[in-house]
Amino acid sequence: MVVVLAGGTGGAKLAAALYHQLGPGELAVIANTADDVEVHGVHVSPDPDLVTYWLAGIIDERGWGIRGDSWRVMEALEAAGRPAWFRLGDRDLAMCLIRTELLRSGRRLTEAHAAVVDPLGVHAEVIPMSDDEVRIYVQTPDGSRPFQEFMNLEHPTAPVETVSIRGAAEAAPSPEALAAIERADAIVIGPSNPIISIGPILAVPGIRDALRAAAAPVVAVSPFVGGRAVKGPTDAFMAAAGFERSAGGIIAAYDGLLDGLVADEDVAGTPVRVETTDTLMDDTDARVRLASVVLEVASRLSS
Amino acid sequence: MVVVLAGGTGGAKLAAALYHQLGPGELAVIANTADDVEVHGVHVSPDPDLVTYWLAGIIDERGWGIRGDSWRVMEALEAAGRPAWFRLGDRDLAMCLIRTELLRSGRRLTEAHAAVVDPLGVHAEVIPMSDDEVRIYVQTPDGSRPFQEFMNLEHPTAPVETVSIRGAAEAAPSPEALAAIERADAIVIGPSNPIISIGPILAVPGIRDALRAAAAPVVAVSPFVGGRAVKGPTDAFMAAAGFERSAGGIIAAYDGLLDGLVADEDVAGTPVRVETTDTLMDDTDARVRLASVVLEVASRLSS
Repeated sequence: MVVVLAGGTGGAKLAAALYHQLGPGELAVIANTADDVEVHGVHVSPDPDLVTYWLAGIIDERGWGIRGDSWRVMEALEAAGRPAWFRLGDRDLAMCLIRTELLRSGRRLTEAHAAVVDPLGVHAEVIPMSDDEVRIYVQTPDGSRPFQEFMNLEHPTAPVETVSIRGAAEAAPSPEALAAIERADAIVIGPSNPIISIGPILAVPGIRDALRAAAAPVVAVSPFVGGRAVKGPTDAFMAAAGFERSAGGIIAAYDGLLDGLVADEDVAGTPVRVETTDTLMDDTDARVRLASVVLEVASRLSS
Repeated sequence: MVVVLAGGTGGAKLAAALYHQLGPGELAVIANTADDVEVHGVHVSPDPDLVTYWLAGIIDERGWGIRGDSWRVMEALEAAGRPAWFRLGDRDLAMCLIRTELLRSGRRLTEAHAAVVDPLGVHAEVIPMSDDEVRIYVQTPDGSRPFQEFMNLEHPTAPVETVSIRGAAEAAPSPEALAAIERADAIVIGPSNPIISIGPILAVPGIRDALRAAAAPVVAVSPFVGGRAVKGPTDAFMAAAGFERSAGGIIAAYDGLLDGLVADEDVAGTPVRVETTDTLMDDTDARVRLASVVLEVASRLSS
């Protein structure tokens, strides 16, 4: 059984390729919930949903939401003058309503998200990192903003000074996440942003210790291709945190956690086993090939 | 300024006709909220919404919801295996999301419903009878059920034994409702079900006293046409409560509250001023004509 830590698109793509390789019941994705957000009173989990829609094969080309979705509810809300900075398609909203209703009735976020995963026919676990509220805030020269507001309202052009992960110190890891880490044969950190996507997962007390205590090797995939992040604001966040935009920067950012790293460049003077390969996942073949390399590296590190 | 007490379709139709006659800013409808219901975690107010959609001129032919609405979110929820006994169109859901978000953020139901009324361009007040939770339960031989479940799951064929209006004794009237009653020139009780639609409004402590203390006359319109309710389960509920299915039964059900009654039959031996006229509101002309008669009766009772 393979555990993937995932945030945005890179991690979701790799998770989908691993699911394709491993088949049903052999994958658990621990997903970042620090950019969860309430929109029109509905609990939206952008990262867990992104992973889920990738696994279900229904991700839209735009990079989020459900393929071919309609926008009737958003159009009505906008016509009624409600804030329109975060848009949800109708099917996407339905999934978020399922989650929200279960949360309001007292269920844990892990249970509530499982009720989104199951009806989409996905036979893998998608586990929120914590059932507690953890939220990432981005500090810019104009002040501190919740992550989704930063991303959607500032597009995100404001310079990043620091990020803070509120609620992390008081949060408990999802019990399902700890159980998955404990029984994993391999643990993969997806090619996601180490600061804002994977950082919040590792900031939940107990998760880093569980990863260190796990029998399985921990293998990361670098999010950098040719020295740049493929998508999203990773570059700015790495710079703000004082890490190089390189495979070496990724090893440093994960601070002793990695046994292996898959990247498109070698790293000198590290105890981490670095496998260099093409890491661009621009089509299904490339994704599946990268997934195979990751599984091979993990397998070699286990033996 | 005219106040209408309304529950289901009859009261909503008459309110729309009065709005047409009176123009903007001259109508306040106090609506029953005892059949409010949570559906997929969303707060639905069937009676206030029915009134609002009638006033906005967007009521669907089926008798509830918004004309030409789509069903994308419901279809997705049903595909995900969620209970489908209460259906909401996409625009209808958007309006309910506005209400729900405001309620969750601590606003009163009266404020939350006003935020539904305003963007629809309705220049009349639609006031929930109370900001507190009041719920009607229907007792049948099989047990007690919340009203919407009784209506939607039993269609409603189960024999009615009694109704109970839970939470009414502890509820406070909406302050906006009391203010409207106090400044009204006429108070109209719509041709709604006296037991399950108007009954809950009158069961909120303070509303009956406010109506008795009001300077304005109270004029009801009988929901019976030719001795039968036009729509809905009024007949069974009147019988269960021990009232005749007649204009006289309406006067008895309102127990001393009425100064006038508009009905399609006369009533002997009552101090209530009874105006007999055709009360069927099967088209706009008939509704507007009935509204004029009601306003005339109120005007005569005031002078």
